[in-house]
Amino acid sequence: MKTTLHIPFKKIIVTIVIVSVLSGCMTKENDQKREGEPAHPVLLLSKSSANKINSLVGRNKLIDNTFYSVKNRVDQAIKQGVIVPIPKDAGGGYTHEQHKKNGKLLYESGLLFQITGEKKYAEYAKKMLLAYAEMYPTLGLHPMHKSQSPGKLFWQSLNECVWLVYSIQGYDFLYSYLKEPERKKIENNLFLPMADFLSAGSPHEFNRIHNHGTWAVAAVGMTGYVTGDNDLVQISLHGLNKDGKGGFLAQLHQLFSPDGYYTEGPYYQRYAMMPFMIFAEAIQRNDPDIDIFSHNDSILKKAVEASLQLTYTNGAFFPLNDAIKEKTFKTVEMVYAVDIAYKEYGHDFDLLDIADRQQEVTLTDAGMQTALDWEAGKQQPFHWHSVFLSDGPKGNEGGIGILRYGNNDDQSCLLMKYTSQGLAHGHFDKLEFIYYDHNTEILRDYGAARFLNIEAKNGGRYLPENKSWAKQSIAHNTLTVDETCQFGGDYKVSSEHHPVAVLFSDKNKELQYMSALDTNAYPGVTMYRTMVMVRIPSLKHPIILDVFKVTTDKKHQYDLPFYYNGQLIETDFAVSVFTTQLNALGKSNGYQHLWLNGKGRSKGNNAQITWLVNNRFYTLTALTDKNTEILFATIGAGDPNFNLRNEHTGILREENSKDHLFINVIEPHGEYNPVEESTKGATSQINLIKTNGSKEKYIKVVLILKNGKKWEVSIPSDPVYAARQLVTLTEISNN
Amino acid sequence: MKTTLHIPFKKIIVTIVIVSVLSGCMTKENDQKREGEPAHPVLLLSKSSANKINSLVGRNKLIDNTFYSVKNRVDQAIKQGVIVPIPKDAGGGYTHEQHKKNGKLLYESGLLFQITGEKKYAEYAKKMLLAYAEMYPTLGLHPMHKSQSPGKLFWQSLNECVWLVYSIQGYDFLYSYLKEPERKKIENNLFLPMADFLSAGSPHEFNRIHNHGTWAVAAVGMTGYVTGDNDLVQISLHGLNKDGKGGFLAQLHQLFSPDGYYTEGPYYQRYAMMPFMIFAEAIQRNDPDIDIFSHNDSILKKAVEASLQLTYTNGAFFPLNDAIKEKTFKTVEMVYAVDIAYKEYGHDFDLLDIADRQQEVTLTDAGMQTALDWEAGKQQPFHWHSVFLSDGPKGNEGGIGILRYGNNDDQSCLLMKYTSQGLAHGHFDKLEFIYYDHNTEILRDYGAARFLNIEAKNGGRYLPENKSWAKQSIAHNTLTVDETCQFGGDYKVSSEHHPVAVLFSDKNKELQYMSALDTNAYPGVTMYRTMVMVRIPSLKHPIILDVFKVTTDKKHQYDLPFYYNGQLIETDFAVSVFTTQLNALGKSNGYQHLWLNGKGRSKGNNAQITWLVNNRFYTLTALTDKNTEILFATIGAGDPNFNLRNEHTGILREENSKDHLFINVIEPHGEYNPVEESTKGATSQINLIKTNGSKEKYIKVVLILKNGKKWEVSIPSDPVYAARQLVTLTEISNN
Repeated sequence: MKTTLHIPFKKIIVTIVIVSVLSGCMTKENDQKREGEPAHPVLLLSKSSANKINSLVGRNKLIDNTFYSVKNRVDQAIKQGVIVPIPKDAGGGYTHEQHKKNGKLLYESGLLFQITGEKKYAEYAKKMLLAYAEMYPTLGLHPMHKSQSPGKLFWQSLNECVWLVYSIQGYDFLYSYLKEPERKKIENNLFLPMADFLSAGSPHEFNRIHNHGTWAVAAVGMTGYVTGDNDLVQISLHGLNKDGKGGFLAQLHQLFSPDGYYTEGPYYQRYAMMPFMIFAEAIQRNDPDIDIFSHNDSILKKAVEASLQLTYTNGAFFPLNDAIKEKTFKTVEMVYAVDIAYKEYGHDFDLLDIADRQQEVTLTDAGMQTALDWEAGKQQPFHWHSVFLSDGPKGNEGGIGILRYGNNDDQSCLLMKYTSQGLAHGHFDKLEFIYYDHNTEILRDYGAARFLNIEAKNGGRYLPENKSWAKQSIAHNTLTVDETCQFGGDYKVSSEHHPVAVLFSDKNKELQYMSALDTNAYPGVTMYRTMVMVRIPSLKHPIILDVFKVTTDKKHQYDLPFYYNGQLIETDFAVSVFTTQLNALGKSNGYQHLWLNGKGRSKGNNAQITWLVNNRFYTLTALTDKNTEILFATIGAGDPNFNLRNEHTGILREENSKDHLFINVIEPHGEYNPVEESTKGATSQINLIKTNGSKEKYIKVVLILKNGKKWEVSIPSDPVYAARQLVTLTEISNN
Repeated sequence: MKTTLHIPFKKIIVTIVIVSVLSGCMTKENDQKREGEPAHPVLLLSKSSANKINSLVGRNKLIDNTFYSVKNRVDQAIKQGVIVPIPKDAGGGYTHEQHKKNGKLLYESGLLFQITGEKKYAEYAKKMLLAYAEMYPTLGLHPMHKSQSPGKLFWQSLNECVWLVYSIQGYDFLYSYLKEPERKKIENNLFLPMADFLSAGSPHEFNRIHNHGTWAVAAVGMTGYVTGDNDLVQISLHGLNKDGKGGFLAQLHQLFSPDGYYTEGPYYQRYAMMPFMIFAEAIQRNDPDIDIFSHNDSILKKAVEASLQLTYTNGAFFPLNDAIKEKTFKTVEMVYAVDIAYKEYGHDFDLLDIADRQQEVTLTDAGMQTALDWEAGKQQPFHWHSVFLSDGPKGNEGGIGILRYGNNDDQSCLLMKYTSQGLAHGHFDKLEFIYYDHNTEILRDYGAARFLNIEAKNGGRYLPENKSWAKQSIAHNTLTVDETCQFGGDYKVSSEHHPVAVLFSDKNKELQYMSALDTNAYPGVTMYRTMVMVRIPSLKHPIILDVFKVTTDKKHQYDLPFYYNGQLIETDFAVSVFTTQLNALGKSNGYQHLWLNGKGRSKGNNAQITWLVNNRFYTLTALTDKNTEILFATIGAGDPNFNLRNEHTGILREENSKDHLFINVIEPHGEYNPVEESTKGATSQINLIKTNGSKEKYIKVVLILKNGKKWEVSIPSDPVYAARQLVTLTEISNN
């Protein structure tokens, strides 16, 4: 990607795509009767691939890992017999978990029948399907339903859609094995009424342009393909009224940015990928004329690619917005996404590296191709690269900048977030950054406050601290003004605004940068942050230069936190540490969750804080003045149920300031080897940073190294200069 | 090992060994002139093995890993040229680190010359040796010396001994390459005066029965072998006065317990293994008649075996006493120990598993044999097993009990420490335990408060918090009485006592146990702790039953902490948590380093605390009464320099109690899978524990499970009953 000012609209492409979608719709409208009955299974796995997979078992490790894990699960379940309880419990409870399990068991036992031909698997699945066919007609809405989109087997229709996505595939695998009256009973009592309930019976959810809607249309559309009910297919593609206002095609065109970014962020993007990819693959098999994978400029390719670029090299998704931090691309959704993308988008060999890291494949046509090529040794290292991902269907609602340096074994990675709010799971974190290095998250985003599916922790749902802490601005590596939350913490207000992406350049690997502007998060305050990943020749690793310019008419207090991971090693200024009593840093807006450990002021115009994590040292060198106070705090105050992780932060505080320019350098250095008992380079190589300030057209930051060399980084001081004046690095002579 | 009451003296064996040592001494005394001059190199690597190693490079991965790492280091150093600075800095400083590096470079460049025959390596080493030969005669005591055992190149003679161990090997490799005048200069200016300085010139250190003494005799003795100075060999073997009161043989007989345990604990045992094994191997080559590896009932075999048994399956040494917790058996000392033990003690194939985990071998005769057999696929899984390791030269000063269950991939491991003080690095931790499971330390020992070699942290030395926190009793999973330290924190007093090992049984894998008695740590207080690792049939993992009986005439306050690793999930009682202000738990004896987070009391006669770590749940079920208070605290108060790790504990507190019986169960259960978003078995399967108390001959603990089953564990209530009444497990009928 080149250095650009972002073009706000991609009008031409959008227009063309809309035309092609509409013509696609028309074609389908004329095709109400489907020709003949295709040979089952008709979805992601063909009979011939099932046979081929059977021949690969015991010979291909990726196939084996999935196959035996499926087989163990199903063999265990068969021993216990079919258990289909009357729906009763909410999420996490017994009947909820049992039905979730059953949906997957229907899929997996059917799958084993297809692959091995063993009738015990077919019999088990048949028995379970018939049990559901008995029970389903007797069910009303789930007794624990409370959302506006209730289910019958589950408290929420979303769970029911997921159940149907799995179980309809199981039925498809069993189709030829079942007798006609059995099929009738199962279709008429279970699948068709359920599909009806999840579409016409839940119009809001079904037509919604949202990942829940995608699960719904995938479930209903796949049911259509398996049962031969073309109407179900059509409403799934084009919306309940078949007018293209809802349905899969509309979702394909509206849910991703032109760069493939899904507005809720990586955690939910991962989740959304599964119904998108599975349903698209089913459409491709049954309606190849639609050429679904080419839609919206091959948006699904971009979406899979973006999902993977939204991970660090250790496989973890960037924990933006409400996100469970342990989530990696090993999740089943990404196994589907990678396999299907590999098959449908021209066999990108670097996807085989991801398949190798996933250590499994889906037992589908796509998974089989992936496993065969992996076995043939075609894999290449996955190409994690610097990238800007725009947000918004038109790509003009800010975005995420990602800068990377180094190979997959030890990569520096800097992410800056300047997206739109990202719906209800969004955080108030405009212009925040996360920094990874050496396979570790060095400066962290807290992610969500949630213990997923752990009953004792608020039933496994989001915790109260998710709102009071995790979403708050102070919980992020960005500016908090006057100890308040961006947009006053009001989701409706924040949803109306987004920052502006200004600069992004990865042209020169040794000097990459990005910048973004926000004028709405705090009324009357303009925030312009430029982040540079620059390799100074005498330093082993690239350093991060962070230039955060605040402009305003009134006096404010600014807090700029750095949530460091690891053990504090030293500061070059005195810190008054509270040793016998701690107090919470504040009373609200997240401050009530921070214990104030200590504070200090720099001796001169710089302050350095060095910490150690994963055997590498990191130093933050901050430009300071007499007004700068540096606070040290630990997460965990106001936490009566021990729900929070006790992570640490250093906060740069400027009180009573109008315009202010924060300049910070983050520098990885040295090595601590406790096994060999050796330490190298434990101290910063930066002697001093100074600047000319932000009054001129460009901000010059001079780095004076301990080796005597001086380097100057020049940065446009304002977005209006950014078009003409790029970021530069110059060695300046000693004089 | 069978269930035994420990026999206090192993008189017979001891007597036999002393005789054999003396006769060994006598033989050597008559052998003042060494025959001829052996073909160099004469120490751990023979010329023929060097050639063989050369032929294996590129073909054997273990050889390659070491060889290329050595080669990279030396090639880098050669580029920089020889740097031999005048000694100036203390530990961690520039000249200290440079000389340390040079010692290894002499060894490694000489080694490369032997293996590859390339002269550039010989030239580099020669140049450096001659530089040292120039400088050494000009040196007085090191300017920064302050210990009673100063060096010349280094501030402490210990560093100088280590330097000599490496550099004399380097010289040995170069011997045949050097011209006679060069040898003369190097021997007369450097090695002989240095050996003299480290022996006759440092009599206290040289004759000391201590691991520092072992480094000294190894350095001096190896210098004797290489230079042909038999007197150096003799004083190294038999002490400065050749009377057997000091020297290597005396160390072999006095520094290890009969089970191979070294009294300072695993961290220092590891360190001690290197000079022991290296020097023994050199003796075996040059003086095979001594049959050094058979000495003291093959004590070096036992010592290597004990070192490895003192690790968990993840390779980490148990962090007892002053220990750096990251230390694993990958450390160079253990690579030497494993290779040499493999060669000298009959090729135990399970040592090859350790070599495999170390992923390297030493480039020695022993390392070559290890690498060849590893390549031949002879390795078997290392047999970590339950074991009692006695402490003290006679094996009657308490010890360490280790119980294990499960294979090397997921092993439960319980360690109880009831050793003697273990010299100056010992902690006041009598009857403490550490518990590992699922590749993780679950209930922790803090280890040392030290950042080794990190200059900013007190020069890399032990931190003040090592004394004020890490050594204190409250920092360990054992009883603290009246908020004081065991033995009043007085090292001299504690060194006079040790607990008594009572029971140890691993006969029945499903019911293993150990117990120990202490009557000295707190005057007037008798502590008797029995720990049981028992597998209840309906539970997936073994549970730990901890029965801690306190007997006394006077009223005391008892604190029994459990330093849990992970996130607190739930308690079955209300906890009043401090949410806006925290206070230190106390003012001294370690309590000043704990923040009190909250406290509570159980509802009935049990209290449960559940936490989550490494995706598995653990529940502590404690027998409680109305007097029991449960405190939650976090390490980190009284820590002005952020030196401590902020780990968590739950503390059972009994105020104003005389006799008291603590009964606790630690139960691993369930699984949290954040990638698959599934949770299983998040709650304890124990409904209730109750007991008949400790007034009878045996304590009966009844566990009532949630499935309705009842199990009774019966435990001798006093050491005097232990001989007759063993621990039993019985299922009791419901009535």
